[in-house]
Amino acid sequence: MRPILCRRLLLVLLGLGVIFAAALSRPAAAIEVEEIGSFHIGGHKVTLTGLPMREGVFTAGGPLRVADPNGDFQVEQMYVQYVKLANPKARYPLLMWHGGGMTGAMWESKPDGRPGWQSFFLRAGHDVYLSDAVERGRASWARYPEIWTEPFFRSENEAWDIFRIGPPKSYQTDPERRVGFSDGRFPLAFYDQFMKQLVPRWATNDAAIQTAYDQLVQRVCPCVIIMFSQGGNFGFGAALHAPDKVKAVIGIEPSGAPDPAKSNVTAMKGIPHLFVYGDHLDVSDFWKQMVANVRRYQEMLAAQGGVADVLDLPKLGIKGNTHAMMMDNNSDQIAELIQEWMNKQNLMK
Amino acid sequence: MRPILCRRLLLVLLGLGVIFAAALSRPAAAIEVEEIGSFHIGGHKVTLTGLPMREGVFTAGGPLRVADPNGDFQVEQMYVQYVKLANPKARYPLLMWHGGGMTGAMWESKPDGRPGWQSFFLRAGHDVYLSDAVERGRASWARYPEIWTEPFFRSENEAWDIFRIGPPKSYQTDPERRVGFSDGRFPLAFYDQFMKQLVPRWATNDAAIQTAYDQLVQRVCPCVIIMFSQGGNFGFGAALHAPDKVKAVIGIEPSGAPDPAKSNVTAMKGIPHLFVYGDHLDVSDFWKQMVANVRRYQEMLAAQGGVADVLDLPKLGIKGNTHAMMMDNNSDQIAELIQEWMNKQNLMK
Repeated sequence: MRPILCRRLLLVLLGLGVIFAAALSRPAAAIEVEEIGSFHIGGHKVTLTGLPMREGVFTAGGPLRVADPNGDFQVEQMYVQYVKLANPKARYPLLMWHGGGMTGAMWESKPDGRPGWQSFFLRAGHDVYLSDAVERGRASWARYPEIWTEPFFRSENEAWDIFRIGPPKSYQTDPERRVGFSDGRFPLAFYDQFMKQLVPRWATNDAAIQTAYDQLVQRVCPCVIIMFSQGGNFGFGAALHAPDKVKAVIGIEPSGAPDPAKSNVTAMKGIPHLFVYGDHLDVSDFWKQMVANVRRYQEMLAAQGGVADVLDLPKLGIKGNTHAMMMDNNSDQIAELIQEWMNKQNLMK
Repeated sequence: MRPILCRRLLLVLLGLGVIFAAALSRPAAAIEVEEIGSFHIGGHKVTLTGLPMREGVFTAGGPLRVADPNGDFQVEQMYVQYVKLANPKARYPLLMWHGGGMTGAMWESKPDGRPGWQSFFLRAGHDVYLSDAVERGRASWARYPEIWTEPFFRSENEAWDIFRIGPPKSYQTDPERRVGFSDGRFPLAFYDQFMKQLVPRWATNDAAIQTAYDQLVQRVCPCVIIMFSQGGNFGFGAALHAPDKVKAVIGIEPSGAPDPAKSNVTAMKGIPHLFVYGDHLDVSDFWKQMVANVRRYQEMLAAQGGVADVLDLPKLGIKGNTHAMMMDNNSDQIAELIQEWMNKQNLMK
């Protein structure tokens, strides 16, 4: 990764950081909200037949009821939640797409209770659309094995490594015994709290997830998409499928990207890209492979003259960020860098 | 049920309805939001051991990974989402608790896209807390059969009857062939859209759900609770467990209530209660039994001198409301009646 941000820009950004810190010490102004709401999009009907009856009491004191598991069911829909501002400063709404085994809740507040990136970007003047992709959260999930396969449940042990909270295999069940990276930015005392956000995930739903995201883009874009980790593939895919609708994509450690040999990267070169990376990516083969895959795509875009910028935080002197950088203790500093990039891309009014 | 609202009040309310309808024709003023965010509350850690390894590719283009299903997992937490106003007019925040097989999304927007009761009560001046109870939506769910039992999935066929969209057993798979009650208030064209909200439910999680709700009350109350259907039992339970914290409870067709013979109803008589009922409750034994159970509790409260008011909509001349009255085409009229009751209970500043 070659960060294109020069030393002078870094100084400007550090200056902005000081201004931002000063702003934090004042009570925040109210957010002027025009509309708040949600909808489900996509999905289809499945009919189950031939399953045996089941009995159950569904509410304390209620009667014993025989439940018929057969019938019609909606499956593979996605949940979308929006906050529209009375006076947005951004040209386009901002869609924030979560990572694997997660939901839109990851953008709302941080595990330590501080406001999340949803609030940051609302206050920066963006209409914000959070979503729970197919299979998770308020999107619901489909019965298995009759409709889907069995899901995977990510343990705290595995998440510790994937999110690079500390060195691989160093997870401890006892919170008192946990030690992260010496420069780690994740607030360790809130790791269990973070883990309460995790939801089961499937390895077989990618096509359905992409389909629903594509439908969302058709409904609410033109837009800018910020996507995290697993969300990266879906965001790049959505841009490939609707390059006229997606005005910029910002991948927060995207765990994948289009294969330049198989995808029409040329169609993407008019869409500004930003790739953001935290620290300690060299600790595992998993992360090294993810980064290498995405770099091939980023370099192809750059070679074609597209905007394919990289925010390599450690190279900017910002050390110790985890995969969950939007929850780290310097997360607003990173959001500010992203906002600054959006300013430069003329995405604000 | 004997509605206590007299004819004069009805006329006042009809007048308010006209004013409200007029207000709808103007662009709504902005909602001044001080803070928007979420948190998870409650739950505990479970450790799984001895399960065999599983392989999976978790992101397109990613490597084949061996997933270890063993380890530590957070289970039985609840998700809570809040919008706090810059200048609330209500004395206490309003907690809105969903029904069985549903999530907090039910309060956000209506299936036909109109603003939901969350917006209505925000605009009326309440800080609003939505939540996804244990087992559903962004609260996540625990692996079965290792931790929980197998859930139930409600079909569109069954929901048609439970929500009293039309006469029992009249559900049709083909939307074109669906016929609701002749005076039915649910927008039939959006029934499939409504069904996309449904999430699996368990019959064995009541204690965990109640525990998490009780923890929520300790954290954010004093408060007023509006609860729908299955949420009724949990709301009455929360008030029983913390009668000093719960300032009023509003049950929208609660599917259960404390048994007066087994519960300390005396502790509840200082908490104003409102019970709201739609139409066509006599079509099924299920609903007749639910209503009878709740009426015993309501009459006991009233006999002890508590405020135990009933909004029996058909007796007020408001016909055809379904169980999902917050999504019906006259739902804001019902919200207005509830707000009026809160005004009378001195719950506003």
